Amino acid sequence: MSKAPIGVFDSGVGGLTVLRALIAQLPREHFVYLGDTARLPYGTKSPQTVARYSLQAAEALADYGVKCLVIACNTASSVGLPTIRERIENVPVIGVIEPGAQAACGASRTGNIAVIATEGTVRGGAYQQAILRIRPDARVNAAPAPLFVALAEEGLHEGPIANDIATHYLRPMFSPSDAGASVPDTLVLGCTHFPMLAGAIRRAVGAKVQIVDSAATTAASVDAQLREAGLTRTEGGEGLVRLLATDGRERFASVGSRFLERAITPDEVELVDL
Amino acid sequence: MSKAPIGVFDSGVGGLTVLRALIAQLPREHFVYLGDTARLPYGTKSPQTVARYSLQAAEALADYGVKCLVIACNTASSVGLPTIRERIENVPVIGVIEPGAQAACGASRTGNIAVIATEGTVRGGAYQQAILRIRPDARVNAAPAPLFVALAEEGLHEGPIANDIATHYLRPMFSPSDAGASVPDTLVLGCTHFPMLAGAIRRAVGAKVQIVDSAATTAASVDAQLREAGLTRTEGGEGLVRLLATDGRERFASVGSRFLERAITPDEVELVDL
Repeated sequence: MSKAPIGVFDSGVGGLTVLRALIAQLPREHFVYLGDTARLPYGTKSPQTVARYSLQAAEALADYGVKCLVIACNTASSVGLPTIRERIENVPVIGVIEPGAQAACGASRTGNIAVIATEGTVRGGAYQQAILRIRPDARVNAAPAPLFVALAEEGLHEGPIANDIATHYLRPMFSPSDAGASVPDTLVLGCTHFPMLAGAIRRAVGAKVQIVDSAATTAASVDAQLREAGLTRTEGGEGLVRLLATDGRERFASVGSRFLERAITPDEVELVDL
Repeated sequence: MSKAPIGVFDSGVGGLTVLRALIAQLPREHFVYLGDTARLPYGTKSPQTVARYSLQAAEALADYGVKCLVIACNTASSVGLPTIRERIENVPVIGVIEPGAQAACGASRTGNIAVIATEGTVRGGAYQQAILRIRPDARVNAAPAPLFVALAEEGLHEGPIANDIATHYLRPMFSPSDAGASVPDTLVLGCTHFPMLAGAIRRAVGAKVQIVDSAATTAASVDAQLREAGLTRTEGGEGLVRLLATDGRERFASVGSRFLERAITPDEVELVDL
């Protein structure tokens, strides 16, 4: 099984930020990435629908003989993980919420932690619960920031509009009108699109706040689990990356190139039906 | 058939602006509205996928015994209309592009017409073609304005962020850097979400530009076709409105209330599977 690919699933192109971290951490591994671009976004949809779509995608990736499955979408991780683990037997399934919560708890000094995510992830409370499991004394404040997704997809992640929207979402948490309120020392980017807006987010929260996302910690967690199971690919050179999408090869290539930080051509993207 | 309902289809809640115009024009008619909230948005998806989803939705509405079918989504109208007309026999199918193009040609003095819409609608060129069929001397300039959809859904349709984004999209068309370039005298809101941002759009284009959308002209067109076919409901009082969605009754109710301009409760929304 060590030569088998690692499956990576996201609702669209956002998970390519996680794939980038995985390739950096595990350059010899093969990857199959699936973006459910025909039904994205998941962040505004109901838990039942997100769970159903995620399971279909996970099952499709399992058919590629993956040795490990990464759910590189916060919304899908927050509502779909238990069902996927139950149905996809014998393959470790790793979400991004738990690694993100670990990164936050490691970074925070005061335990006052802010989370921004999609509507669905915030409503489900998965980050809040994961952080409190690791650090029961933490104070977690989660808020949705849905416009960030559209900004990142459109390539408007830098500039005055991005700065204004970041201020709109983050000022209530980081510059509360109540002067006595304590301010979080750590901010979790709880959506794979949000690292694209790191500059605007940094300007909105100031220099002192620790900003963490799940990408690097998820990659480290995958690395550790593969080592433990003796499933690391050791032979050969750089691994291969297959990119699958359920719709729109051109858009996947043009928008995805920014997220993966390397050029993707439409020819590289294989269309699949779920 | 005169007592049968009028079917109205949209990818989500945007088409409720068209339903509002239909109810105002035809208060005695019954309506069945279907929003494909499980798979929205259509505006960033490929023509093939949008056509497939639209046909499924149209077939579902046909099963409700509708006497007329309104495709109240610009993206679906621009790519799905021919297939739907072919498959849904004996029921007139009315899209929003043709009425929007008629409204634009009626409003424009100079024939220099701007269109803002989703990526899919702009790429398909349906507005450009429809306007040129009516007025072959027109000059049509179409641009995508995808963030407007997210702004309208989030209720951020007024305020500094909406104004800045409207300026970002509209300044290149209405205040071109080339001083000799002629400026459009008419702007078509080619997405059913955009009328929600009418204030910000007006501020960005100035007082002199004619702003038109498809809602009122589509309602007038439905009215005319029903009269011609002798299918107008004449008896009884106000018609009934059924609201169907493929996902998320709570979100449909909360976001949809703003678009329909009347309170919708989650209990009113029936979930259907396509």
